[in-house]
Amino acid sequence: MDVDKRLEELKSRLKIRPIEWLEDGRVRWLDVRLIPWEEVYRETRDYRRLAQAIRDMEIRGAPAIGVAAAFGMALAAYHSRASTVEELLAELEKAAEVLRDTRPTAYNLFWAIDRVLRAAREAARSASSPSEVKDAVVLEAKKIMLEDIEANMAMGRIGAKLVQDGDRILTHCNTGALATAGYGTALGVIRAAVEEGKEVHVIATETRPLLQGARLTVWELVKEGIDVTLITDNMVGYVMSKGLVDKVFVGADRITVDGYVANKIGTYTIAVVAHRHGIPFYVVAPTSTIDPNLRGPGIPIEERSPDEVRTVLGKLVITVPEVKVYNPAFDVTPPELVTAIITEEGIAVRPFEVSIPRMLESKRKRVEGKEG
Amino acid sequence: MDVDKRLEELKSRLKIRPIEWLEDGRVRWLDVRLIPWEEVYRETRDYRRLAQAIRDMEIRGAPAIGVAAAFGMALAAYHSRASTVEELLAELEKAAEVLRDTRPTAYNLFWAIDRVLRAAREAARSASSPSEVKDAVVLEAKKIMLEDIEANMAMGRIGAKLVQDGDRILTHCNTGALATAGYGTALGVIRAAVEEGKEVHVIATETRPLLQGARLTVWELVKEGIDVTLITDNMVGYVMSKGLVDKVFVGADRITVDGYVANKIGTYTIAVVAHRHGIPFYVVAPTSTIDPNLRGPGIPIEERSPDEVRTVLGKLVITVPEVKVYNPAFDVTPPELVTAIITEEGIAVRPFEVSIPRMLESKRKRVEGKEG
Repeated sequence: MDVDKRLEELKSRLKIRPIEWLEDGRVRWLDVRLIPWEEVYRETRDYRRLAQAIRDMEIRGAPAIGVAAAFGMALAAYHSRASTVEELLAELEKAAEVLRDTRPTAYNLFWAIDRVLRAAREAARSASSPSEVKDAVVLEAKKIMLEDIEANMAMGRIGAKLVQDGDRILTHCNTGALATAGYGTALGVIRAAVEEGKEVHVIATETRPLLQGARLTVWELVKEGIDVTLITDNMVGYVMSKGLVDKVFVGADRITVDGYVANKIGTYTIAVVAHRHGIPFYVVAPTSTIDPNLRGPGIPIEERSPDEVRTVLGKLVITVPEVKVYNPAFDVTPPELVTAIITEEGIAVRPFEVSIPRMLESKRKRVEGKEG
Repeated sequence: MDVDKRLEELKSRLKIRPIEWLEDGRVRWLDVRLIPWEEVYRETRDYRRLAQAIRDMEIRGAPAIGVAAAFGMALAAYHSRASTVEELLAELEKAAEVLRDTRPTAYNLFWAIDRVLRAAREAARSASSPSEVKDAVVLEAKKIMLEDIEANMAMGRIGAKLVQDGDRILTHCNTGALATAGYGTALGVIRAAVEEGKEVHVIATETRPLLQGARLTVWELVKEGIDVTLITDNMVGYVMSKGLVDKVFVGADRITVDGYVANKIGTYTIAVVAHRHGIPFYVVAPTSTIDPNLRGPGIPIEERSPDEVRTVLGKLVITVPEVKVYNPAFDVTPPELVTAIITEEGIAVRPFEVSIPRMLESKRKRVEGKEG
């Protein structure tokens, strides 16, 4: 497989390119903090700057974070002045540490970094010079991006089967092009259903504190002409009780092997209300979001700055400035509230402790088959 | 009973005076839209201006709306140039129409207007001049304010029995001094519990779109030194799942005789999550919020301007300006999710279709006994 060729081909099908590797050793990304007001692309050659972009949420969404971290590793390799393979590996370990220390919940971050490190070590075994390892690292990062787009498109096709013509779908946060390498997870399913000619009506929650729903999801959907209605987060109960929602599709930041789903704060509340109203609740995420080492609800949850709650986007103070605040960025939805989990490998249903490991195993076999 | 004397006495015990009748025929109110940034009091002699203040939410909260509407009627009477009693009654009917046409959900609005009209008609039967009717109208409006403060304090005492030392109480929107004639419904219970020496920790939801929780509830509680932590509306599920909430206390804008509760948008969602976690869900409202003519969930729900959702308080645009929006100001919580309803008459529990009519009957007897 020619990774570059395939990547170019896929990228040409994307309407939005949130992150890219440039061949002279730069990474370019869309600063999503400025959407919908401005479309500003930023560039760097420094993996530390990219780590900062992840921490400050210039780049956000678990799959996009994974791709960005992989490119961070690629930047560290590309610009390394190490004279030996061992020195390069040590530098990469250091870069991995800096990149891991950005956001604690998104599993794709750790998955992508580990995968690039494995590729580096693998290459190091037979490498005669650092440059061979560098090439392997950059290639692996590109593969991660390529696979993310492919996985997104596959999830779209698979998930779209669950969407009926005329469905009114509630979604939370942003799970679209701006959360991935370019197509979307939950929003990818909606995109795919629309591409198949189905009529879909989206209800998007604004998603306080950082308003990814109001800013990003609405921006993406309006851009593509997909019908969308914006609500505040506390209207979820109202729209469900009024019969205005047929299905819920959300993304995930980390999924345990037994089906606990960490996702943007507010997801659990939506799942509880959907459950009361018998509304199917679907989670869409690539297998790279599944943490194979974790069971149960104890997913590490990032607590962010109180000023995100005391203000709106740092632009408007909305309360008494010294008030105490909780600001967990994620919550955990237990498996009994999840109707199904859609990955690029298929649709997993309960009991997830059976279906998820089976899915991971089938992926492992498929990848080994391809490589072997 | 000397209404003026009693009112002065009660007012002296209030830390915040959101609305007042001034003896030269003016009404003064705190424009709560500007809290917490500025404390601006406005005045008028024109009931139409007061109707506008209700519509634009310079005055909000069902009990405060009721008192403001009563004072609107008092302004119409006080400044009337009618030369006959009949002419005055016709003018009052006209004012009632204008005032009723401000906000459709808060039952206190209709209750207060009807009560003032009844007092006017009653006075008209024996009046020899319009001025006697005018006096009766102004007196009735003052009584409504007086009774609101008394009812609030009574609810506080009654509800405080449900609060244990150390309780962590979640509340929604603002139900304090800024929502009533000056003490509070749900926040009145918290205030009373604190006055009794109990330690109470409040979790306040910010309450989008107009942020009454972040702006008003936090402001009131910080001012009085009551412990408060602010969350976004979508964190309700998180804090409940983490065991951080012992009880929920909310207000109401209209309660049916069978216990359906219309309250600020988001209340139903909170009730559903509280129910899942076995957290008691209490509604605190004066009997003037109970609509004796309505059963079931079909309470009229006000739909407000989409720009309330597309912006934050008109100050910051947060989405694509042309996006469609739902903006219901209230939702309806069904009786099965309500643990108890606290009024000035006592605590009503399920079945509400028995306990609520009994409460209204006991109030009727008490009032008749007092008057007879």
